[in-house]
Amino acid sequence: MKGTPENATFVDAAALEAFAASVLEGAGLDEECADVVANTLVDANLRGVDTHGVVRLEPYAERIESGGLNPDPDVRVESVREAAAVVDGDGGPGQVATLRAMEGAITLAEDAGGAFVGVRNSNHFGTAAYYTNVAAERGYIGLCMTHAGPNVAPFGGADPYFGTNPIAVGLPGEEFPVTLDMATSVTAKGSVILAEEEGEEIPPEWAIDASGRPTTDPADFHALQPLGGPKGYGLAFVVDALCGVLLDTVFGEGVPTMYDDLSSPQELGHFVGAINVEAFTDLTGFHRRLSRMIAEVKSTRPGEGFEEVLVPGEPEARTKKERLEEGIPLGSGVSGTLQSLGDRYGREFPA
Amino acid sequence: MKGTPENATFVDAAALEAFAASVLEGAGLDEECADVVANTLVDANLRGVDTHGVVRLEPYAERIESGGLNPDPDVRVESVREAAAVVDGDGGPGQVATLRAMEGAITLAEDAGGAFVGVRNSNHFGTAAYYTNVAAERGYIGLCMTHAGPNVAPFGGADPYFGTNPIAVGLPGEEFPVTLDMATSVTAKGSVILAEEEGEEIPPEWAIDASGRPTTDPADFHALQPLGGPKGYGLAFVVDALCGVLLDTVFGEGVPTMYDDLSSPQELGHFVGAINVEAFTDLTGFHRRLSRMIAEVKSTRPGEGFEEVLVPGEPEARTKKERLEEGIPLGSGVSGTLQSLGDRYGREFPA
Repeated sequence: MKGTPENATFVDAAALEAFAASVLEGAGLDEECADVVANTLVDANLRGVDTHGVVRLEPYAERIESGGLNPDPDVRVESVREAAAVVDGDGGPGQVATLRAMEGAITLAEDAGGAFVGVRNSNHFGTAAYYTNVAAERGYIGLCMTHAGPNVAPFGGADPYFGTNPIAVGLPGEEFPVTLDMATSVTAKGSVILAEEEGEEIPPEWAIDASGRPTTDPADFHALQPLGGPKGYGLAFVVDALCGVLLDTVFGEGVPTMYDDLSSPQELGHFVGAINVEAFTDLTGFHRRLSRMIAEVKSTRPGEGFEEVLVPGEPEARTKKERLEEGIPLGSGVSGTLQSLGDRYGREFPA
Repeated sequence: MKGTPENATFVDAAALEAFAASVLEGAGLDEECADVVANTLVDANLRGVDTHGVVRLEPYAERIESGGLNPDPDVRVESVREAAAVVDGDGGPGQVATLRAMEGAITLAEDAGGAFVGVRNSNHFGTAAYYTNVAAERGYIGLCMTHAGPNVAPFGGADPYFGTNPIAVGLPGEEFPVTLDMATSVTAKGSVILAEEEGEEIPPEWAIDASGRPTTDPADFHALQPLGGPKGYGLAFVVDALCGVLLDTVFGEGVPTMYDDLSSPQELGHFVGAINVEAFTDLTGFHRRLSRMIAEVKSTRPGEGFEEVLVPGEPEARTKKERLEEGIPLGSGVSGTLQSLGDRYGREFPA
């Protein structure tokens, strides 16, 4: 995920976040919402997940301007039990509704020990790890998933039906959140597009062509393959069953991507969970044992081609530390787009 | 998983279950516990998961006789909140403690909307899908996972640290539970052993040799590879963090397999969850939409080499239907072992 483009400009994270918020406000988004969305975007850049960083600012701004994102949503809790709730995102940014959902799950889990919260009437929410990190930083185990537009064929099928339907889990570590954030497909469509642009072949396990056969030619792309065949297919099925079927919203082929019709809200569903460590053990003991497990994993002998064994979330934590100090590297393409966005809304791009 | 051995004897499921319970009792297991374990074993056979069926009867009986399984455990709930609890398995069969945990999770979720229950001081529990099916058959979404003895190398590592750490999810379907039950490794060690016995090569993504390189020679097996590299590694990490670290029991290399020291309980941890569909939507609507999703997935065009697209849990549901009618096919090796077990405890093998 991490990678510094050639001729990159390094931009201070706080300045970039203020700029992003200001552009979103310029596009019409409510100030509080703009702050949340800008924070999630720059956090993705800080963690090295540049595909989900400020590069998304332009499509978000366009969606706001086109009427496909409610710029001043009334995000509300629709129903609530001791350990379950549903949040209605009111067609606003997925980030705002999902952050509210995770905070609600943590509040419920504080007493109940654990909780599940669904989000409906939502839009694209950025990275799932953002929300599980919120939980992990407060000493909770966080779970987050979302469905997405159809790109992935079911195992044994020739046509796309499910999205890349990511699942994230965050564990409260002493030094950094141990974070898994994975698509349930072998790879993202972006990797196929990139290979095509670079004129490279793709591994046969990534995608199938229109006849349903694995292909190595990105030009023949028809659908992504699920991770590990029936396993990734099963995980994608479960994610859509929780986000779409359980929350009574769109599912399967009915899920629009964030680049489809910009004038209508996506009506996405998301599903989050929080586990209160203290309901099972004391947090100090949990930290101590998790640190021991991390140390043990990291002391296993590296395999061929690896210098060290890393823990899930460790590469992102390292990149974040670096980028907080050195700034976020932006390639000339992204910088140019941000510059134009700044010009459009009369905001100064801080590069 | 399904497959009928040559010269198979077909045994009636109910008769096989009664025989299994009777053998376990003969080995010293409490009657109620024996009934639970026998039911889980034969259920695995019915679903076609023969690796986890009555073939495990002998090692279970040996563990009971060797003192590594408490034959009359006092399974008790140690702590409980509205949506969280811990069950102490008292060194008895994992099946008894985990069934109690899932039933407890369902009871808590009935009011709270969802719940998580951990199990500690447990032994091998069979298949995770058994417990998620219990939830699904009662209209709940079930989640179940366990750690296991070290067989899988971390991503980037050359030595085994994690187990195959399976994760199961069950969704209440109208016709059958939609069930995912997956190891977080590419495959099970049993597949490598089978290839070696058959004199066949293994795919390079299955395993690594002692130098940490992918190998195609099953004789060079040193560790299994995680599913999809960092993804399966991350999932295995999370499973052990929940089952071992959170529940304050063994983890990583410290987790014994069911074939290790038969005279000491394994001290395993398991983690289950239940979601009450009715806390989010009405069950009738959930069923209707899930059936629509199933129909849509099944009507997607099959890929090359496939006759139809199946839903997770559908092959197992079909096999169960067949085997309930035709009996459970047992190869001569398994039949012989069961026969000897029957002789040892003075019980008649029903074939």
